[in-house]
Amino acid sequence: MAKILIKNCVIIPMEKELADPGERYFTGEIAVSGRRIVHVGPQGTVSSDFQAERVIDGTGKVALPGLINAHTHAAMTLLRSYADDLPLMQWLEQRIWPLEANLTPEDVYWGTKLSILEMLKAGITTFADMYLFMEQVAQAVQEGGMRASLARGIVGGERGLAALRETEELADKWHGFEEGRITVMFGPHAPYTCPPEFLKEVVKKAKQSGLGIHIHLAETLDEVQRIKNRYGKLPVELMEEVGLFEVPVTAAHCVHLEPHEINILRDYNVKVVHNPESNMKLASGIAPVPEMLEAGVTVALGTDGAASNNNLDLFGEMRAAALLHKVNKLDSTVISAYQALQMATRAGAKALGLEDLGVLKAGYKADLILVDLEKPHLYPRHDIVAHLVYAVQAADVDTVMVDGRILVEKGQVLSLDEEEIYRKVKEASDRLTGQH
Amino acid sequence: MAKILIKNCVIIPMEKELADPGERYFTGEIAVSGRRIVHVGPQGTVSSDFQAERVIDGTGKVALPGLINAHTHAAMTLLRSYADDLPLMQWLEQRIWPLEANLTPEDVYWGTKLSILEMLKAGITTFADMYLFMEQVAQAVQEGGMRASLARGIVGGERGLAALRETEELADKWHGFEEGRITVMFGPHAPYTCPPEFLKEVVKKAKQSGLGIHIHLAETLDEVQRIKNRYGKLPVELMEEVGLFEVPVTAAHCVHLEPHEINILRDYNVKVVHNPESNMKLASGIAPVPEMLEAGVTVALGTDGAASNNNLDLFGEMRAAALLHKVNKLDSTVISAYQALQMATRAGAKALGLEDLGVLKAGYKADLILVDLEKPHLYPRHDIVAHLVYAVQAADVDTVMVDGRILVEKGQVLSLDEEEIYRKVKEASDRLTGQH
Repeated sequence: MAKILIKNCVIIPMEKELADPGERYFTGEIAVSGRRIVHVGPQGTVSSDFQAERVIDGTGKVALPGLINAHTHAAMTLLRSYADDLPLMQWLEQRIWPLEANLTPEDVYWGTKLSILEMLKAGITTFADMYLFMEQVAQAVQEGGMRASLARGIVGGERGLAALRETEELADKWHGFEEGRITVMFGPHAPYTCPPEFLKEVVKKAKQSGLGIHIHLAETLDEVQRIKNRYGKLPVELMEEVGLFEVPVTAAHCVHLEPHEINILRDYNVKVVHNPESNMKLASGIAPVPEMLEAGVTVALGTDGAASNNNLDLFGEMRAAALLHKVNKLDSTVISAYQALQMATRAGAKALGLEDLGVLKAGYKADLILVDLEKPHLYPRHDIVAHLVYAVQAADVDTVMVDGRILVEKGQVLSLDEEEIYRKVKEASDRLTGQH
Repeated sequence: MAKILIKNCVIIPMEKELADPGERYFTGEIAVSGRRIVHVGPQGTVSSDFQAERVIDGTGKVALPGLINAHTHAAMTLLRSYADDLPLMQWLEQRIWPLEANLTPEDVYWGTKLSILEMLKAGITTFADMYLFMEQVAQAVQEGGMRASLARGIVGGERGLAALRETEELADKWHGFEEGRITVMFGPHAPYTCPPEFLKEVVKKAKQSGLGIHIHLAETLDEVQRIKNRYGKLPVELMEEVGLFEVPVTAAHCVHLEPHEINILRDYNVKVVHNPESNMKLASGIAPVPEMLEAGVTVALGTDGAASNNNLDLFGEMRAAALLHKVNKLDSTVISAYQALQMATRAGAKALGLEDLGVLKAGYKADLILVDLEKPHLYPRHDIVAHLVYAVQAADVDTVMVDGRILVEKGQVLSLDEEEIYRKVKEASDRLTGQH
């Protein structure tokens, strides 16, 4: 059990949901023992019994909980910038799906490793993935050292039943790995690709296994229209009817909601993942995030896949969320910097059912990052929370710790071979696009 | 006259306004002699007479024209993150203006130096500034090595007449400095702060001196309402009436425009500067950029001041512009990556009346940047233009050349003392906010 002391850094614990500006950060120290934070406090307050094996000087840096990317398709990094500025159906049908049809398990392994490399460097410590060949994804997560919630994406029908069995096998092997560094969820793709009877089967299996559900919900107007035409209901209404919300649900997007659907989400404690850059890039629409927060819905943040973003940078998502809703409401007070930072940390932990995560506090998992403030765009230092949302770059991340283990130091990822990943990704990408 | 050859890099010349994906970039070399580009072509095509004093290996990098920040208030970096998530008038009246009232010439000098440090590191080679104590701004630009178009911000009335004289003195000393590295414009602040009679005086002086005008125009609904109430006209109509558009005009914002006002801007060849992040953060509104581009108006990009952004990062503005208008129009084909990159390069040059800038082509000014592609978020390489708009970070900028002179190498600014700037900015900021 390694004992690490981080001294003399600005600390943003994110413990309080509401905090006055003066309460948001202070200068102090953080003690970590094994997988857990054991102390967070002002300088010189750690117990004299705590014998650090390593002391990190945090001068000029700010410590905050590791960022949580609550919705992505990690291996889609292989398709990054492969198809942009196209109408949605042309993007999917002519570009994304044909390439995805040729993906091999090894491609997904290397694509996921690339995503882990990128996310770690950007201060993301946990991600929630929905994709295929999840055994390879789990291996990449095991090796890369990140925390992840894994869901095999499932489309209804015969293949869907096989994918449900795959999920159960994945859970048998990986759910709870290393005291919960890896967890597993069921991943029914969306209401329009999973018929009600199939979703009922998923709910049954989720109840049996105790796993949660990760689903896309109300992402596009087209989806809402299809569900209305087929079932005479709105997507959230339909999901309530099939009993989906009787188990813990992480619902990505939730762009097109009527007010009473927001209340349904709130009443069932459904967790929503907002993906502002993907929703903007695919022109899906603007999710009613201020309304959801006002109603008391937990709203986390995600990048979605790199094919519709095109990076995996939650600092960018925080900024996009804070800026987009201000202009959409013509109200500059909507989604404050502190709220955006909450969405990327403690709300992300809640969204994935990881209760002792997302806050810097004794007893919580030791997932944290240090951001280097010695940059021109982070001077002067009137408000460090505002800096992290409105001014920072992912490249400012200096140190990343997951589960008490230091994975990034001075911006370099220690757990992965960068050159090997680039080489393997280039090979996979050349083969997929027919360039040799 | 230094001769520099950059070899073996991907080159995005931005020469064509419309370019098929295959025509947007190629691998080749760029030769620079003194302040000018003398050759751009495939590998091995530079004349054998060209004797490079220095050869830069561009392997793994992409060369593009230096980015042009066509509207900012550089020294407002001193107020970065000093006031966020507040209603506009409270932001201005209770936070920004009181602090600005205490600014000294030395503060503006150091604030501008901080902005130059930040902009250079982010690949910005030219900026258009509107602020006060412009003599100090010019000195900072001279020393930092950037290209700049400087305008003393002018509010109508007695003090306005003095500020007009200041502008003339500034132009006498600096306009055309180093073959145009520094140019000067008149900077009447906005239609609601400069009455028509005063603006007519500005136009008269602009005609006499041959200088252009840099103005804020139609930024907020409040401005439109004030102008309507006072003059019974819309802001662009009023500006046409006072004759403003009879001289070259760079108009920042243009958020609230009626369709016929777009036609007026087009007919007079007024250049518009879009500031998407500032407009979003201050909840000003969404400028009709697709409509302006469709009408044939030149639209450049700006960061606005760091107090409303909160960084000076044009990559972020490109991304914001491309994403915001897609979701606003519910059309994922609006503002392509290539269009966004044009707004930040060749359109910026046009907006500031700098005709031989913003394109990598023999005869043009040698302002260019190299972006390092060896980053996880820039793998694989399906489309490098899309990477630069949707995936890149400012920190990926490796090399920056302005006017033939290398100012940034491996991300380090050669022309400025970083530590000294941080120290001076901290002193100024502590004094301004009363912390000692």
